Amino acid sequence: MHLLIVGGSDAGISAALRARELDSAATITVLLADSFPNYSICGLPFYLSGETPDWHQLAHRTEFQGIEILREHRATFIDVENNSVFVRSADKSKVFPFDRLVIATGAVPVEPPIAGLRSPGVFLLHTMEDSFRVHEHLSEHNPESAVIIGAGYIGMEMADALTHRGLNVTVVSRPHTVLSTVDSQLGEVLRQEIVNRGVTVHTGVEVSSIYPGDGKLKLQSKTGSELTTDMVIVATGVRPSSELASAGGIETGARGAIRVNRKMETNVPGIYAAGDCAETWHRVLEDYTYLPLGTTSHKEGRVAGENAVGGVRVFAGSVGTQVVKVFDLAIARTGLLESEAHVATFDPFTFETLAWDHKAYYPGARELKIRITGDRSSGRLLGAQMVGHWKSEISKRIDIFAAALFHEMTVEALNDLDLSYTPPLSSPWDPVQTGAQAWSRALSLNQATRELKHV
Amino acid sequence: MHLLIVGGSDAGISAALRARELDSAATITVLLADSFPNYSICGLPFYLSGETPDWHQLAHRTEFQGIEILREHRATFIDVENNSVFVRSADKSKVFPFDRLVIATGAVPVEPPIAGLRSPGVFLLHTMEDSFRVHEHLSEHNPESAVIIGAGYIGMEMADALTHRGLNVTVVSRPHTVLSTVDSQLGEVLRQEIVNRGVTVHTGVEVSSIYPGDGKLKLQSKTGSELTTDMVIVATGVRPSSELASAGGIETGARGAIRVNRKMETNVPGIYAAGDCAETWHRVLEDYTYLPLGTTSHKEGRVAGENAVGGVRVFAGSVGTQVVKVFDLAIARTGLLESEAHVATFDPFTFETLAWDHKAYYPGARELKIRITGDRSSGRLLGAQMVGHWKSEISKRIDIFAAALFHEMTVEALNDLDLSYTPPLSSPWDPVQTGAQAWSRALSLNQATRELKHV
Repeated sequence: MHLLIVGGSDAGISAALRARELDSAATITVLLADSFPNYSICGLPFYLSGETPDWHQLAHRTEFQGIEILREHRATFIDVENNSVFVRSADKSKVFPFDRLVIATGAVPVEPPIAGLRSPGVFLLHTMEDSFRVHEHLSEHNPESAVIIGAGYIGMEMADALTHRGLNVTVVSRPHTVLSTVDSQLGEVLRQEIVNRGVTVHTGVEVSSIYPGDGKLKLQSKTGSELTTDMVIVATGVRPSSELASAGGIETGARGAIRVNRKMETNVPGIYAAGDCAETWHRVLEDYTYLPLGTTSHKEGRVAGENAVGGVRVFAGSVGTQVVKVFDLAIARTGLLESEAHVATFDPFTFETLAWDHKAYYPGARELKIRITGDRSSGRLLGAQMVGHWKSEISKRIDIFAAALFHEMTVEALNDLDLSYTPPLSSPWDPVQTGAQAWSRALSLNQATRELKHV
Repeated sequence: MHLLIVGGSDAGISAALRARELDSAATITVLLADSFPNYSICGLPFYLSGETPDWHQLAHRTEFQGIEILREHRATFIDVENNSVFVRSADKSKVFPFDRLVIATGAVPVEPPIAGLRSPGVFLLHTMEDSFRVHEHLSEHNPESAVIIGAGYIGMEMADALTHRGLNVTVVSRPHTVLSTVDSQLGEVLRQEIVNRGVTVHTGVEVSSIYPGDGKLKLQSKTGSELTTDMVIVATGVRPSSELASAGGIETGARGAIRVNRKMETNVPGIYAAGDCAETWHRVLEDYTYLPLGTTSHKEGRVAGENAVGGVRVFAGSVGTQVVKVFDLAIARTGLLESEAHVATFDPFTFETLAWDHKAYYPGARELKIRITGDRSSGRLLGAQMVGHWKSEISKRIDIFAAALFHEMTVEALNDLDLSYTPPLSSPWDPVQTGAQAWSRALSLNQATRELKHV
């Protein structure tokens, strides 16, 4: 049995490792378009900040026992009729036959419609090679200032990274908020943090052109405002890299991602897709969506690898859990925002609470902001968001919500969870639970007010 | 409706608050034997270490709107025939009638059979007043050394606290391990930490007598060894304070705790018990047990309070989640140890893994030890233990296991949880999940070896 995997990042390598673990007889080959198998691209901002001095450290692993890894092998066509993949390597073409195929081609950066996007000193940041170019530019040109276009996860991390490196940083965002993946109330906390750290933030601004002049780069917005800077990072999101699959007749779905079922199988039997190139089953929405995240890529890859060697594993689904650290803040979310819940025809109610990360009498207590969204009629938990100091266990507290979402718990049932407590680390009711209690009280008040209005 | 509550610590006040929240008409009275309603006795070690300078800070709350709090009112008898409680206050006796009663009398320290336990300079530590006596002794006598008898949670926290205060501390423990609530492999990590911090540890030693001499205290063990010190703290566990209940004809069960059903009701209808005086429903054991913890007291109190005013709430049960911080370590557990799982007729398999708390390429990564216990045949998660730096989110990581136990997940299914990741805070597979994957691999190997032996 020959398992062929196109792509050697999170999903591809996870598929290979899982297949290897379960099937000692299969031949497993991974085709890499570049030379960097299983690198942590989530770590690129820390390499560029200087916190991770050597890019080699970014490798999730360097040993791939029993797995053939072919670097600089770019797949050019999938022939689904003849179970084979055409590959270009060192200017030669080869054909790789397969019994089972996993497509894990990842995502590519969205290129916004900005004139001059190819100017020297303007960088898209997604791959290892992108980051080498940025690193080289930083080292050789010693820029004093940078503009980051985009205020999502990468934009925010790069604002931190380049400030850490000593640059004057300006963030330009088309939406009127930063980090629009969380509610604006929490985005505002993040904006305050980065402004306090010296970052200039322009929201509601759409850059139309970038052109070089006087050894600088000049950015012009649609409304005519101008910015001058030494370098530009464009981080306006990603889209699935699914052209290879669709050219071969493999169907695509949500936002152009490769259509899969819960076994991560495409419309072509024996051909699987996983990671940022594929659709993701969303457990709360109960629908396929496009949600490219490293954690999901690992899970989907593992499921695809298991099924490709004869397993019957079903991907349990994402609940949309995400966290980012920016300067001293961590911001996390899981499940749905109120706006997303409305679209999904829930009847959401959201309430925000402040809670100490541990008993205030023990030194170092800090406040967390917790926003809980639940369904009014069923009481079901739909989502949670949290912001606070990055050492306040926000990341693993959002995971308690994530586990609750996984099991379709109600907000009130969060109080039944037996969570750990010692005064330096929590409270007898964890903030997750005081947030839940506050949500229930607020909902009762809100319903009572609604009823009063109807009298 | 008159709700009477005996005891004003965690369980009693939680019952009062919940009843008040749900029933605006009931009269709610809380009888306190002392003067300290709703104080965090878990915080006493930090008051004694000096980290929490003012004991008033230990109050969970100081406002009890709509709840009558009667300090220095000691209940002396429950007359279940006539729905009334006899109370002694300022040398007067009073009778308090009730429609519903919640007994929340807490626990008392176990007094080990040691001669001279009442000697000046020897302290049991459980109540606010106990801690005032210890505090006074520390302030007035400036002891240079202390012996702590008992190496459980309080013993370990007091070793930290008194070392923090500058005393030379010796811990004496009857078991051969410290913190026997976790497996000895993790207890050994803790022993190393406290020894590194200058604490002397004698395990497997049973103190038989303490007697004053030359302005010091001399301790003698059963085997004749001796220790000389300036003060002694005895922390050898607690037992339920259930005499008041049993004298009134209310049944007791596990380890003498008041017998309750899942509604926290005793054998006498309308009389509830909650917290450290009562039995606890254990969700994994599916049995009533005695497990006195602040978190459980709050939950049981809330359930009792809800039911006492006409609710129909069922206590979901404890899964035995606990955490303690000692010097720079946090040690946490949830569910069953392998030894406890055997007793409960599971077929447990335990495996220990090391994992980084976050991606090693981001500065400050530290290793965690994770021990997972699961059932061999069903694969069900039975328990987990973790030790590592107290800033490694151990407490909330054990809570992920706790949520999984709550829902009877298998170890393998932990990999399906959508947990948050950013390189400074975790890995794409959280340590909870790499631990689970290692457990599954180890079990497969172990089963294969077993089968080989049977060939």
